[in-house]
Order: sequence, then C-alpha cells, then structure tokens
Amino acid sequence: MRWPDGVLSSGISCGIKPDGAHDLGVINFEEPIPWAGVFTLNAAAAAPVVWCREHLGAPVRAVVVNSGNANACTGAAGAAAVVATTAAAAAIASCDPHEVLVASTGPIGIPLPVGSIENALPAAMASPGPEVEAFAGAITTTDTVIKTSSHAAGAATVVGVAKGAAMIAPNMATMLAFLATDAAADAGLLHAALAPAVGRTFNRISIDACESTNDSVFLFATGSAGRAHPDDLAKAVEAVCADLAEQIVRDAEGAGKFVRIRITGAPTEESAAAAGRAVAASALWRAAVGGGDPNWGRVLSALGAADRSLDMSRISLWIGGVPLFIDGEPIGGSSDAAATMAADEIVVDCALGSGHGAAEVLSADLTEEYVRLNAEGTS
Amino acid sequence: MRWPDGVLSSGISCGIKPDGAHDLGVINFEEPIPWAGVFTLNAAAAAPVVWCREHLGAPVRAVVVNSGNANACTGAAGAAAVVATTAAAAAIASCDPHEVLVASTGPIGIPLPVGSIENALPAAMASPGPEVEAFAGAITTTDTVIKTSSHAAGAATVVGVAKGAAMIAPNMATMLAFLATDAAADAGLLHAALAPAVGRTFNRISIDACESTNDSVFLFATGSAGRAHPDDLAKAVEAVCADLAEQIVRDAEGAGKFVRIRITGAPTEESAAAAGRAVAASALWRAAVGGGDPNWGRVLSALGAADRSLDMSRISLWIGGVPLFIDGEPIGGSSDAAATMAADEIVVDCALGSGHGAAEVLSADLTEEYVRLNAEGTS
Repeated sequence: MRWPDGVLSSGISCGIKPDGAHDLGVINFEEPIPWAGVFTLNAAAAAPVVWCREHLGAPVRAVVVNSGNANACTGAAGAAAVVATTAAAAAIASCDPHEVLVASTGPIGIPLPVGSIENALPAAMASPGPEVEAFAGAITTTDTVIKTSSHAAGAATVVGVAKGAAMIAPNMATMLAFLATDAAADAGLLHAALAPAVGRTFNRISIDACESTNDSVFLFATGSAGRAHPDDLAKAVEAVCADLAEQIVRDAEGAGKFVRIRITGAPTEESAAAAGRAVAASALWRAAVGGGDPNWGRVLSALGAADRSLDMSRISLWIGGVPLFIDGEPIGGSSDAAATMAADEIVVDCALGSGHGAAEVLSADLTEEYVRLNAEGTS
Repeated sequence: MRWPDGVLSSGISCGIKPDGAHDLGVINFEEPIPWAGVFTLNAAAAAPVVWCREHLGAPVRAVVVNSGNANACTGAAGAAAVVATTAAAAAIASCDPHEVLVASTGPIGIPLPVGSIENALPAAMASPGPEVEAFAGAITTTDTVIKTSSHAAGAATVVGVAKGAAMIAPNMATMLAFLATDAAADAGLLHAALAPAVGRTFNRISIDACESTNDSVFLFATGSAGRAHPDDLAKAVEAVCADLAEQIVRDAEGAGKFVRIRITGAPTEESAAAAGRAVAASALWRAAVGGGDPNWGRVLSALGAADRSLDMSRISLWIGGVPLFIDGEPIGGSSDAAATMAADEIVVDCALGSGHGAAEVLSADLTEEYVRLNAEGTS
C-alpha cells in the first residue's frame, strides 16, 4: 500500500529490540503540513505524548517512531530523550525540532536508549519510500501482522497504519495509528474529522481494559489532491480508523476469538457504548468465551454492575443470534448458543429496552496465552 | 468454632452440586432477632438478594443458603423459588415466611432446582448444631478452604463465616458472609456497625473486578450477652470482616500470590481506596505478578488511567520495600524488586503526594489457572 503523494516513510532496526527486529520508523513530508492528533488521557502519559500534545496546531515535517520501549514513566530522562530525538531528526531534515513529532511503544519504565535512535536516524531517513509496509512493520510490538487501510475521500485518499496487540482499552487502545491524506485541510478541519472517528472506533475496542500511556492517533494532510468535502473526508477517516481498530482486535495479544458486542435500546449512544465496554471488560465473560461457554449470565452481571439503574425486566440478549434472555426471562437455548460459540467470531446482542441509543464494541476472549505473554513482561 | 449462644446451623447435600458435595446450609435462631445486611449494587441482583433487601428491618428466625446455583438472572421463576424456599423453611420452623432469609451462590442464569431444596430442608433443619463448620462448608463453591473468624466485643462475641473464590470485586466481592453476635443491638445499631466495616474490608478486596449478582453480608444479634458498647461492637465486626476478606483473597480462584496494595498521600481515604482498586483491577499488572515481574510501570499506568488528574511528578512507588520510582523519576532497583516478587505475599506501596488519605486494597495475581477455571463455566 502507498501513502498519499507527498508522504514517504521507512523502517529499520536501531537496536532497541534485543532480537534485531525493526524498531525505528520515520515518516517524512516534503514540506511542513497541518495535522491533528488524539492522545491517551492517562495521567502517566509517555514523554512523546506530552511532546506531541504541546505541538498540536503547528505544522509538521517528520515523525519518528520507535517500538520496543514506551519511553513512559521515564521522568526527566524520558523528556530529554524526546528533545534529543527531535533535534537529531531536524538536523537531518533541515527543519526546526518543533516540526518533528515522536511516538513510542513497548515496555514502560525502562530508560529509552536514545543513542541508538540518534545513531540510526541518518540511515532511516536516507532513502524513504512511498510504500507503508516497512514503516508499519517497524512500529509493531507483539503484533503478528501489520495493519494498514485505505479509503477514498472524493478525489483524495486517506491511508492509515496502526500497531496494536495488548494494553488495549477505550481512550484508547494501546496503539499508535498514523493516517495521512492528500486532501487539503487545516488542523481544525482535520481535528473535526479525527476526534469523532476515534470516539466511534478506537474508543470502542477493548482487549484488557488497561488504558495505555502511549495511545496516539495522528492525521496528516499534504493537500496535493485539493479540497475534499468535509463529510467525505470525515467518512474516509472514520472508515480507515474502523478498519484499523478491527484489525487490532483480530490480532489481539493471546486472543483466540473475536467478539462483537452490539448494544441497542440504550438511553444514548454513549451509554450504549459504555454498556458494551463493560461487557468487553469482564474477565469472567471473556474467560467463558475462551472456553466456548455461552455464559450470558456473566454478560448481564457485567451490564448490571456497570449501570445500577438498569431495569433487568426490559433486557433481552442473544448470542450468535440465539435468544437466551427475553424481556427479563431466561428462555433456555444455551446448547444452541454453545454451538455458535465454536466460531472464530462471536456476536452478542443486548437490547436494553430503554431508548434508541446503539453502539458496537469489539473485543476478544481472555486466554491462558494472554496471561503467559503478559507474565513475561514483554509489553 | 462455635456460633454465639442462640445460633445453630447445619450443612448437608441437597443434590444441586452434581458431585454430591454439600450445597445447603441453614442458620436457625431460637426466636426472631434483629439483623442488618449489605448487598451487591449490581442491577442484576439475584432473587434472594431482592428478597432480603425487602425484609431489611424485620426480625429473622432462619436463613437458608444454597451453593451450586446463584438463582440470578432467573426471572419470575427465580423469585418464585425464593417464595417456595422461605415457605418450606417457615413451615418447619413454625414461623412466618417473612422471617426467613435466603442467599444463593454459584453459576448465574440456570433455573434453581428448588424442589431439591424443599425436599432436603426437613433433614437440614432437623438437628442443627452450635458449630459453624458444617454450614461454612455447605456454602462454598470453588473455595478450597472454609473461612471463619471470631472476635470479642466486650463481654460479647462476633463470629463470622464467609465464602469467596471468584467474581471478587469491590461492592462487594462475590461472596456471602454471615456474622452473628450475642450482643444486644437493634437493626439500626447493627447497620451502623456493619456498613462502614464492609466499606473498609470487603469493598477493598478485588480479584477480577467483576461485581457479582449475589454479594451479601449479614449481621445477626441474639442479645443473650447483653449490651456491648457500640464502639466495641463496631470494632469486632470490622475485625471479623477484615479477617474474612483477607481469607477470601488468600483463597482466590486460581491465584498464586497475595498482593497488598497500600496507597498513601491521596486527597481522601476514598480516593486512596479507588487508586488501590484500580491497581488491583489491572489485568496487565496482575499477569506480571503471576510471572514474578516487578513491572511497576503497569502500576503507574493503572493509577494514571483511573485518575487523569494525577501529578506523576509527586508519585513514589516501592515493591517489597524496594524503591523503584521516587518523586516522578525511575531510580532502577528492578532486580532487587524482582527478588521480592518470589514471595507468596507482595506489598506495593504508592505515595501519591497529594494529601493524607490512605487505604489498603488486597488482591491476587492473574494466572493461567484462573482463565482455565473460568473458561469451564464453574461459577
């Protein structure tokens, strides 16, 4: 897949990952361009997140991304590493350090070996290309596949690359995503397209309910394709975000099954999303999914724990299309539902009977493999 | 251990548990006595919880408890099963059905085989004894040991029995607890002793952050020992609750390690408890504990995700007494901390630097065994 015109990228190894896998990616723009960003709300936000937030609204020439180290909870040294990285990249790109953005992903609390990045940046920035794949590979951690997506926005295009894996929870998944378009748009228009799209996509996926320190979604606009209609741009941005979010859940660390939780009949769309997130966050329900057990009682329990005003007598629930609980009454059907749980993708429908709000949350099962991976401290 | 004078109990098999293990317990009082109760706030509260809430304030003669089935999310049939159970017990005890309380624990959403309870109640209530053990055993689910505790309240005594295992989260743990005292106290005084004690004990333990449909804590008072000073009673009730809560965490389903999370320097005691619960709920941190990894970054990330206004530059963190992060800066020490993680009990201290609120939350690690147990749908 190719970036829009005016965007080049690269991905190489700089030596942060002990196995020599690629761990340094750079995106270059031909000239300073407008961008928008949405970031984690975690108070322990990583040093690169702090830097990018401070530079919101100012044009950008390059983005430096490392995997294998989150540069989070790293104190003053972490902030200094960001300054050193942006200075090194700016020297190569002949721009101001404040025109360079940074993002990191990997284990938390380990000093970033910034010398490795400084040493490797000249090679990384020497011959960037129009293809996304090398960059997409360099930003992965425990991802098993790269995540890319592209959608048209009128005559323009929106292209996106993401990494996911674990520590995935709303606001946002532990994830980095980089979207670029050749549509002409200023930072305000880009933010107007990006923020609601993130709300409806990346903020509606949940793997382990752990909001990370590094979540960042960027949208860059080169402008070479001219103005797109704002609605076309917003739709294309949301389509790319939705596609990347679903790819992240399908490649969730240690997960075996993909779970689509559809909530209808909530007072508002936001309360529907909150109900879906509560189900997605239930360790007991997720463990049942892993075991192929259509344990709908754990779904109801998660809903009732999250919203104590819920009227159980109005609730109906289906798993795999099989009705299990209708208007507050269990109606059998668990053996039919169990048959649907053997599939790789499981759909849970909950009708709350309290309004017209609806939302879909994407989630995964809880597996012994997830526990094993995260006991080893790889992320 | 013996109940206070005037309290008798029993435990037998009524056939709900397929393996024939004891699953029916009854507590009898010589005459109707005052009691207090604190119950789950889950909107999907089980039928027995609904019954007990409706009878708060009225005297009680007997309590019927079954394990192996939660009678939760069971609709009208579940409510009818409670009516049938209380009627059957009342007929045997020659009292009013409204003087009988009920509690259930086990899988959710499965019709309660109430006929088995009705058939077995005559035998269960035929020859109750003053010892707690048979009752304590009959109310267990995946508990590996019974939980009992006793503390003096002046000349009186408070005795408690609990079951725990999984689905353990604040407000409250999935658990049932039955406390009885021979102190003389009315329902109001009992509630004044019980509610804050539950807030400081059962609401500060967390295994899997899944609040259950059945959580109930009862405190009964026979009065045979005469008046106790309210402070003595409150202290004894809290001591018994604290003891039982810790026993529940030490016997948590699938857990290998006991984790004590101590938060200091929070604006209030409640915000300290909330911070502790957020750490206790982090699947990533708990998986790290299981792997013996002192991954303090995951602790900070959990704190920062739960309270977005946290000032990281004021935070200090120790694991096993080893300083790892002081006033916002990582200071090494992970290998020393790793050595302390080999112990069965792990202590995490977080000083938030924002006030004088302190609280302790008890928790456990996340293990492959937990996932295996809960994939099998046993609870």
